[in-house]
Order: sequence, then C-alpha cells, then structure tokens
Amino acid sequence: MSNKIVTISRQFGSGGREVGKRLAEALGVAYYDKELMSMVSEETGFATEFIEKCSESVASTQFAYTFGRAFVRYQHHPEEQVQLAQLKVIRELDKTNGCVIVGRCADYLLKNDNPFKVFVYSSDMGYRVERCFDRVPEDREKGEKEMQKKITSIDKQRAKYYDYYTGKKWGEVENYNLCIDISKVGIKKAVELIVNAMS
Amino acid sequence: MSNKIVTISRQFGSGGREVGKRLAEALGVAYYDKELMSMVSEETGFATEFIEKCSESVASTQFAYTFGRAFVRYQHHPEEQVQLAQLKVIRELDKTNGCVIVGRCADYLLKNDNPFKVFVYSSDMGYRVERCFDRVPEDREKGEKEMQKKITSIDKQRAKYYDYYTGKKWGEVENYNLCIDISKVGIKKAVELIVNAMS
Repeated sequence: MSNKIVTISRQFGSGGREVGKRLAEALGVAYYDKELMSMVSEETGFATEFIEKCSESVASTQFAYTFGRAFVRYQHHPEEQVQLAQLKVIRELDKTNGCVIVGRCADYLLKNDNPFKVFVYSSDMGYRVERCFDRVPEDREKGEKEMQKKITSIDKQRAKYYDYYTGKKWGEVENYNLCIDISKVGIKKAVELIVNAMS
Repeated sequence: MSNKIVTISRQFGSGGREVGKRLAEALGVAYYDKELMSMVSEETGFATEFIEKCSESVASTQFAYTFGRAFVRYQHHPEEQVQLAQLKVIRELDKTNGCVIVGRCADYLLKNDNPFKVFVYSSDMGYRVERCFDRVPEDREKGEKEMQKKITSIDKQRAKYYDYYTGKKWGEVENYNLCIDISKVGIKKAVELIVNAMS
C-alpha cells in the first residue's frame, strides 16, 4: 500500500493520540494535530484555545442550526464556524507525502484519498480510567466513578459530532479498516499492527 | 501471550472461517468447527445436518422459550436443545494446547479462559457478495441484490443468536480485541495480524 494516509478515531482515554504520534514517526509522515488548530485559527480568527474546546463537541451546534434557520443572516454560531473551518482545513491538507490525523471525522472527510482507517478503543474501562489518572494525577482525588462518567460523556460528544457531520455511526466497525483493543495489545503493538496491515 | 485460545466472530461471507483455519495452522493449535457438530450430535442424538442448520439461528428459540414455559415438561424445543448442548460442548472443550473456534458465542462462553477475540468483517458489501458467488457459483444467477438480502438476513440471525445467549451486542467493538476489515487487508494479512497481536 503506497498510500500512507491514516486516520485514527478513538475512545477518550484509550491512547489513540499517542498511537497516532508514534505511527507518524514509524511511517515517516506528518502528524496533524495541534497544527490543525493553528490553521483553523488562521481561517476563522478565533483563538486556538476556543478551537480546541469546540473541535469535537456538537453540544451547541444543533442549537446553532435551529438558531441559524430562524435568523438567516446569522447562520453560523461561532462553534459551528470553527467546526466547518476545521472540516475545510482537513479536506484541503497537503497529503502528498502521507499523514496521520487523529479524530475530527478525518476518516470520512478524506474518503476520496482512500485512507487507512483505524479505531482505537479499550474493552476494559479500568484501563482508560487509569490512563486518564496518569495524565492528570489530581483527577485521581475525584474517584473512579466520576472519571468513568467524564469518559462516557466525552465519548458521547465525539459520537454526536461524528454522527452529525458524517451521517454514520461512530465506533461502528464498517467505518474502519482495523479496530484495536488497546487494553489487550498495548500502544507499541498497536502501532506495529497498523504498519503491518498497511504494508 | 502464552495462551493460544482464539475465538473468531464474523460477518457472513467475510471469510472468517478461512481465517480461522489458516490461523490454527499458523499457531499449531486445534481448529474446532465440524468436530463440534459431531460432539453435539453425540450429546443430543440429533443428526449433524440438523445441528448445522440451527447452530447459529435463534429463529424458533424464542418460540420455544414461550412454549416451554406453558408446558413445563417440554421445556426445550429441539433447536434449543442443540444450542444448549453446543454451549456446553464449547465450554467443556479441551483447550490445554490452545485452539481456534469460529462463531457460536465462543468469545463469551470461553471468557474465563481469556481468549483472544477477533471479529472479521467487510466494510465493502461487494466483497462479501463476490465471495459468496465464488463459493456457490450457481447463486450468481439470482443476482447481487438477492445475495445482499441473504447476507444481511444471516447476519441478523447471528446477531440475534449472540445477543440472546450473551446479553451483549454482536459486532460491537468492545466485545473483541481485534476487528479486521477483510476487504481492505485480505485473508493472509488478517492471519498475520492476529499472530502478531498475540505474540
């Protein structure tokens, strides 16, 4: 497979971002993540912090949609402006030498580029909770249950965002080419598997 | 991973059975498929043909369940007898030296043996249709649409059977450790990936 465009969708706390970074290194291609924020910032004029905040949440988009229909001249709520700019930026990315993109419906947006589409998840919720605690140790005080709630809620947002913009179902196998249970195989092996599957 | 027990769930027409056979060879472990039929036949006294027919269909099981409650002495409809015997046979299989089992809720039934759980599917319906035509060439006359209907219907039966006996959702990523899009990577590579993931 000479085409080295990979999209990684992932459950929150599953380590998909780390898989993406290491995979880009292994393949010797660009890794798009924070760079996308700057591009969207240039496109919209909004701060990258704001862009990060609404980059995968559709919470107020549906409100914006209704709102937009009522007030034709104010069609796009700022969050939706960011999201639409993001979709545009991803579609227009320079993919000549391949790239890895994490999240943001990239699997769908780049479908004409025939990307290799990966979904990273964990069959073990405890693994995700532990990973989140490791990344933000002060969250440990809040307890496991609270963290599970947060994880489930962020996944719901991601699913909503994906379903809204693609008309498909986030996390459904048919939308991906390889779905990896990170709690079973680990991050290093996950990268190996993707490289192997693409070779 | 020293434990070499692998369960393979698969969409109809995706080639999961062939993946299973080749994988068992690659791992040097037993492949349970037709053998299970004979064991269930011994257990129940029914012909292997009948057992094959109802081994993954739950169509009349729900009827049997209702029927069974009304007539206490006739609790198990023959199809359900076969299915229950099958579940028992799988649970009691000799797994000392590892094995590969395709279908039949084995991922759930063997959960205490910590199997490596694979789901084989195809993101491309055309791939499955073509595979079915290759296996039974006379079906080609019936046309693609008819074959698609058959495929979808058998998948529905498998999902129903799985959901009924496990309380989980067939094809949902969290129930598996690796989900492979066979139309993207092919059978040979799928076997490689599983061996690699387990090593």
